[in-house]
Amino acid sequence: MTTLEKLIKSFSRLPGIGKKSAGRIAYFLLKSDPALCRQLADQLTNLHRLIIKCSVCGNFTEQDPCQICSNPSRDPSSICVVEEAQDIQTIEETREFNGLYHVLGGSISPMDGVGADDLSVAQLMRRVTENPVREVILATNPTVEGDTTALYLQRMLKERGIAVSRLASGLPVGGDLEYADRMTLARSFKGRTVM
Amino acid sequence: MTTLEKLIKSFSRLPGIGKKSAGRIAYFLLKSDPALCRQLADQLTNLHRLIIKCSVCGNFTEQDPCQICSNPSRDPSSICVVEEAQDIQTIEETREFNGLYHVLGGSISPMDGVGADDLSVAQLMRRVTENPVREVILATNPTVEGDTTALYLQRMLKERGIAVSRLASGLPVGGDLEYADRMTLARSFKGRTVM
Repeated sequence: MTTLEKLIKSFSRLPGIGKKSAGRIAYFLLKSDPALCRQLADQLTNLHRLIIKCSVCGNFTEQDPCQICSNPSRDPSSICVVEEAQDIQTIEETREFNGLYHVLGGSISPMDGVGADDLSVAQLMRRVTENPVREVILATNPTVEGDTTALYLQRMLKERGIAVSRLASGLPVGGDLEYADRMTLARSFKGRTVM
Repeated sequence: MTTLEKLIKSFSRLPGIGKKSAGRIAYFLLKSDPALCRQLADQLTNLHRLIIKCSVCGNFTEQDPCQICSNPSRDPSSICVVEEAQDIQTIEETREFNGLYHVLGGSISPMDGVGADDLSVAQLMRRVTENPVREVILATNPTVEGDTTALYLQRMLKERGIAVSRLASGLPVGGDLEYADRMTLARSFKGRTVM
């Protein structure tokens, strides 16, 4: 296999990149300034060397605790539980939440052999016991696995007397009733709000 | 900017990768084995170091002349002219052509200030003069620029008494008349073949 073929193969292993896109990227890099390749190579080399997991919330960070956990202006009594670290970035962009996060590292999925022990559930329980946490917002995905995980956590947290809420599920903003699937529409009825 | 943000920015500069996809790739790499990152970094470092342009046809290669130009079983009397080196790969996959290639490095486009002097036209003329070339197949893209380039080359090659042909343009195989655009349909009429 040639150097070019090897690079195309590596790129096509990345999510969302097929063989055609990988080829396009490889030829693009070949025709670009070698500095672009060098920069990308350096950044890839640094990735695992510089980025660690926050020992408090599990977010990816270059300092421990992470910038969110160590920010004194954030409310430590409110914790938002997410499945993956990248969900933090997505939620941060909405600027709706000023508390701290907790990354589970996935969702409970018996089909895939993932149980609560494989997720950072024990760490979450320790966090809410050792710190004055008032509210936990469950922001797992609105999927079967995400819902199962939310239900499981809700029971454990309620026992500890903590207010638990779940992100609203319903019609996406700018969407069209006509194109909404049955499940989403049913949820938006159940979760309808008083005007 | 953090290491992660820098990597996401670099990825989003690649063709076909937006900010969202770049983020997905970066997090995928973070969660994957560091070996994958190292491998990709090495391949990127090697890319410009190991790959050169074939001095005969302009194809990207690790040996000069390239594997196609130096293959004795290929027919040197037939040259297929393409705009970009990646077009060679695409044509090779069809296994329809057993001659040699010539990479122009683009197409004539007065709008972008690209003239014949910016392409390897002179090299092509030298090739057909110095070698016993019988036929030249113009495989530039079926666009205004590709057609202009083909017309320009056709005139120059005809003067030298070389048979010139152009790839057929028309309905894509498996396509539907209903969805064909007007220009493509018009071309498929002009280029209709006797049954």
